[in-house]
Amino acid sequence: MSDIKVGIIMGSQSDWPTMKEAADVLDELGVPYEKKIVSAHRTPDRLWDYGKTAVDRGLQVIIAGAGGAAHLPGMMASKTRVPVIGVPVQTRALSGVDSLYSILQMPRGFPVATMAIGAAGAKNGGLMAAAILANTDADLAARLDKWRADLSASIAEEPVDE
Amino acid sequence: MSDIKVGIIMGSQSDWPTMKEAADVLDELGVPYEKKIVSAHRTPDRLWDYGKTAVDRGLQVIIAGAGGAAHLPGMMASKTRVPVIGVPVQTRALSGVDSLYSILQMPRGFPVATMAIGAAGAKNGGLMAAAILANTDADLAARLDKWRADLSASIAEEPVDE
Amino acid sequence: MSDIKVGIIMGSQSDWPTMKEAADVLDELGVPYEKKIVSAHRTPDRLWDYGKTAVDRGLQVIIAGAGGAAHLPGMMASKTRVPVIGVPVQTRALSGVDSLYSILQMPRGFPVATMAIGAAGAKNGGLMAAAILANTDADLAARLDKWRADLSASIAEEPVDE
Amino acid sequence: MSDIKVGIIMGSQSDWPTMKEAADVLDELGVPYEKKIVSAHRTPDRLWDYGKTAVDRGLQVIIAGAGGAAHLPGMMASKTRVPVIGVPVQTRALSGVDSLYSILQMPRGFPVATMAIGAAGAKNGGLMAAAILANTDADLAARLDKWRADLSASIAEEPVDE
Amino acid sequence: MSDIKVGIIMGSQSDWPTMKEAADVLDELGVPYEKKIVSAHRTPDRLWDYGKTAVDRGLQVIIAGAGGAAHLPGMMASKTRVPVIGVPVQTRALSGVDSLYSILQMPRGFPVATMAIGAAGAKNGGLMAAAILANTDADLAARLDKWRADLSASIAEEPVDE
Amino acid sequence: MSDIKVGIIMGSQSDWPTMKEAADVLDELGVPYEKKIVSAHRTPDRLWDYGKTAVDRGLQVIIAGAGGAAHLPGMMASKTRVPVIGVPVQTRALSGVDSLYSILQMPRGFPVATMAIGAAGAKNGGLMAAAILANTDADLAARLDKWRADLSASIAEEPVDE
Amino acid sequence: MSDIKVGIIMGSQSDWPTMKEAADVLDELGVPYEKKIVSAHRTPDRLWDYGKTAVDRGLQVIIAGAGGAAHLPGMMASKTRVPVIGVPVQTRALSGVDSLYSILQMPRGFPVATMAIGAAGAKNGGLMAAAILANTDADLAARLDKWRADLSASIAEEPVDE
Amino acid sequence: MSDIKVGIIMGSQSDWPTMKEAADVLDELGVPYEKKIVSAHRTPDRLWDYGKTAVDRGLQVIIAGAGGAAHLPGMMASKTRVPVIGVPVQTRALSGVDSLYSILQMPRGFPVATMAIGAAGAKNGGLMAAAILANTDADLAARLDKWRADLSASIAEEPVDE
Repeated sequence: MSDIKVGIIMGSQSDWPTMKEAADVLDELGVPYEKKIVSAHRTPDRLWDYGKTAVDRGLQVIIAGAGGAAHLPGMMASKTRVPVIGVPVQTRALSGVDSLYSILQMPRGFPVATMAIGAAGAKNGGLMAAAILANTDADLAARLDKWRADLSASIAEEPVDE
Repeated sequence: MSDIKVGIIMGSQSDWPTMKEAADVLDELGVPYEKKIVSAHRTPDRLWDYGKTAVDRGLQVIIAGAGGAAHLPGMMASKTRVPVIGVPVQTRALSGVDSLYSILQMPRGFPVATMAIGAAGAKNGGLMAAAILANTDADLAARLDKWRADLSASIAEEPVDE
Repeated sequence: MSDIKVGIIMGSQSDWPTMKEAADVLDELGVPYEKKIVSAHRTPDRLWDYGKTAVDRGLQVIIAGAGGAAHLPGMMASKTRVPVIGVPVQTRALSGVDSLYSILQMPRGFPVATMAIGAAGAKNGGLMAAAILANTDADLAARLDKWRADLSASIAEEPVDE
Repeated sequence: MSDIKVGIIMGSQSDWPTMKEAADVLDELGVPYEKKIVSAHRTPDRLWDYGKTAVDRGLQVIIAGAGGAAHLPGMMASKTRVPVIGVPVQTRALSGVDSLYSILQMPRGFPVATMAIGAAGAKNGGLMAAAILANTDADLAARLDKWRADLSASIAEEPVDE
Repeated sequence: MSDIKVGIIMGSQSDWPTMKEAADVLDELGVPYEKKIVSAHRTPDRLWDYGKTAVDRGLQVIIAGAGGAAHLPGMMASKTRVPVIGVPVQTRALSGVDSLYSILQMPRGFPVATMAIGAAGAKNGGLMAAAILANTDADLAARLDKWRADLSASIAEEPVDE
Repeated sequence: MSDIKVGIIMGSQSDWPTMKEAADVLDELGVPYEKKIVSAHRTPDRLWDYGKTAVDRGLQVIIAGAGGAAHLPGMMASKTRVPVIGVPVQTRALSGVDSLYSILQMPRGFPVATMAIGAAGAKNGGLMAAAILANTDADLAARLDKWRADLSASIAEEPVDE
Repeated sequence: MSDIKVGIIMGSQSDWPTMKEAADVLDELGVPYEKKIVSAHRTPDRLWDYGKTAVDRGLQVIIAGAGGAAHLPGMMASKTRVPVIGVPVQTRALSGVDSLYSILQMPRGFPVATMAIGAAGAKNGGLMAAAILANTDADLAARLDKWRADLSASIAEEPVDE
Repeated sequence: MSDIKVGIIMGSQSDWPTMKEAADVLDELGVPYEKKIVSAHRTPDRLWDYGKTAVDRGLQVIIAGAGGAAHLPGMMASKTRVPVIGVPVQTRALSGVDSLYSILQMPRGFPVATMAIGAAGAKNGGLMAAAILANTDADLAARLDKWRADLSASIAEEPVDE
């Protein structure tokens, strides 16, 4: 079993600029991860394999980003009990509301932990993954606590003209 | 190869009252069909098998109904080149707009022929299936032409108080 | 009867940049087609004639794109039993949701096979047309299978920074 | 030429409970009218004939109600220069927003005077028709002025518990 | 009484780029009009005066454009029986859906003939005004018929690459 | 000048079941108020008079409820500098989103303090009125503080089956 | 430290019929939990205390349900690094879209794992909590695997008339 | 007690370009104010302190701007009886509808006086604050009356080409 516990997957290369925020915050927090393109529609067998082997490969969180009829997070949740975090990628015509509904409205039995639309959601997906692992990793918990404290400390008292 | 060219599939038993309209209009038009429950999330392997064997079993149209994060039509379109007609089942909180977006907003490569939300969409799914088959089945074409003519002829001239 | 089985129609010249994706993918697949501007409102008689002669001219699929109060696909579906694929063109104020609802929400009797909003929907309209014809054209079926396999094979394993 | 200047048309019998409010207020105001079922999809030729003869038959306003992919008002506006008032009938899944967008979002050249969704819109359609005719009919203008004054006079000063 | 029968009013100078399309098409059709800024909120008394004198000044149509909480068309409809055409001006955050609902959803008694959102709606407002006047002005009717015929004749047969 | 500082107004009797929650909570807090039906469209002159005399009559808050094209709160805000609280009444087709946008989206210069849609918004309108008066009325401030403390104290620790 | 690792909290007693599905599925899976009413607005100090003590009390997941301006999940996520699952409770006027946006659209730094609107979301919240704990609890993992397998096995092959 | 009666607070520096309009109009009206960044999620304790001391520090209005899951206005309303005016800041994916619903849909007991989305709402927030203070400050009332009169007087009679 690898020591990589987080997988970041996305439906296509075009989702990477969004999903990179998840990778970056995991880097900041010292959480190793793998990243892959797994298209629900173009590479369904890759999805199948990824889902079937997730537990055995030691994954504890999968962060899945997709846009439009975003089937990747939900189908992954169907194939593995590893918690799946879904990131709705913003889209052109419907601003990501299509991605959101496709990811969020899962039927009973197959939860997807949905994040905000777009890059903020991707970053929060990374943080949620860290928080899940931090439950049983005291060092990571300390790093996450510090990250949160630093964020709060960075807020100025007064707004300034730009 | 069976002489059944149309498959009606749906995500759960609760979709049947909607999807039955597709079956009924195919019965009216003398088009044989099979019907199955194929849940994208609860029975993903059944979906896989259905998609992989669709061409060989002689299917020429698949009518797929689902609600919420409705992944069935799109995933089926990923697994087979048999044309997939999608029926967004109406839902409680979002009235089927979630079903609609999950079915409609497919990425390039994997079209789903989306029908109106709810039972009217299911009936139209049956009619669209018949129209596709009628292209190369003169008898069915004649029956479909008559069905359409009868519908038009049934419209009264004036509204009446009820 | 011509050997052109697919007609691409659109409400105005301004829809062509969207609808061209349907034409392009049909070119890739070696499917001949005709293309015309048919405005439901500005040239209703052209619509009438197109619909009335569609079967006799050998059309087996009509791909109709329109925006706003997009009446072209639905009115065409009223005039012919040839399967009509509708492409909602993106609009300025309402992002194509107006086009979508006008095309999708057809009453019982007159299905329109609705695609995603915008250019992705147009491309998928071409692919859906090919899939319908492929049911009874083994050569096209082989070309379509290869097109789909090539698409899947083109997906990289890992995202790359841009 | 008949002395009937207002035509009330609707897509189906099921629209009549809504559209009856237009008829009722025209009765109150002493404005004669005809009423017909004209389905854009099921009876397109009836629509064509109605539109082509509207001017010659002396119509000065057409009130058209329809629901869903509501093509009747817009197609009628395409066929005649007689002013068309559109009434979006409320629908089940989308509450009439589908009807609204299909009626409202007409392209340059073919206006439809859209009213509120549902029965209030139908009543206002009748009042708008009367207001148009009242421009050149002093007696009707007086009756309409009185109708409006009576409405205002009917408003109580204080709300009462029910 | 002036021979100006059409008033174009708008809530602010910023609505003029939209409303100018109404003026332009009236110019094309040879229909004289006046144009004014009448803000429901900033100049309510101007609105009052405009409404009260509209009939006596010979106005037969008022085209009113406004955005956001667009109260101008509806308040004008409250003050005069002259038919009011409402044009929802597109807005930044809500794309004109706010303008649309504020104009469209009038209560029983006070219809506003609502046009499409934005400049297309403004142009159609001008055309609707002309159509209303054409009912009793044969020369204008002929000009409007020609305008419509010219529009139809201008539609090319085939789309061209740009 | 009367000692009534709060006016509750509404567009019609049908708004009273909603607006009564504002009245009830003012009763609970011992804040005297007047209540009137003031229809922006049916009784515009009543609206004018109410707005013009508001300051002189000693009003310090006006709570205005309306539905659909809800022009009452915004027009009142145009006529008086007395703070206007707007309550969007829930509607049938659009659930009060029409009321909300008509009340909320006021142009610069004429704020309306918009509350939640429906009865909860009406109650909160009453509480907001009380909070405004409490700024300069220590007794009322004490009563409002107690009302808020009682509300908090009423919350059970654990949910119970019903 | 208690052996209760899951807290179910909700904004009011009225959320319990929804949130009970989370409790029920945790009961099925043998996962102990506590349940409390914690209102962000009415009992903010209770929220504060709950958040501050969550880690020390051994909580590893908090499932928070709320409706309308649903601030509970997000404020809890601000006060503790324990992963927070948010359940948007369905509301009357806006069907829970208000709850959804208030829970989902968290800024960078404070993720809330959002579930589907309503009772299905609550049940999935329980399952997501179990999946998180199952990462490091082999017995629970086995029970969850069985629960999922049983769900899949319960799906009939064919729909039946009801 | 300070003579500053208005506090302008916002969730982050990025809200300042919007909220500055509130500050600017208060400057125009000669109303002193303080301005602070108070993040509900990143600085919850700052929020707590601000709310707890608001009455004692003499604040009579708090104008709170926030975007996305905009919890600041509502949480502040929970912590103090000082009237809170909420400004929904426009967002990227959802145009500020997320901010709006999070601010507007407060439960019974904790009103937030919600303004229009974006900068117009911020300016109106400043004007509403002034109107509240003007109830008991005759000099400010006179300045506000003049400001409003000047705004009305600035409206031209006719639109001009730009």
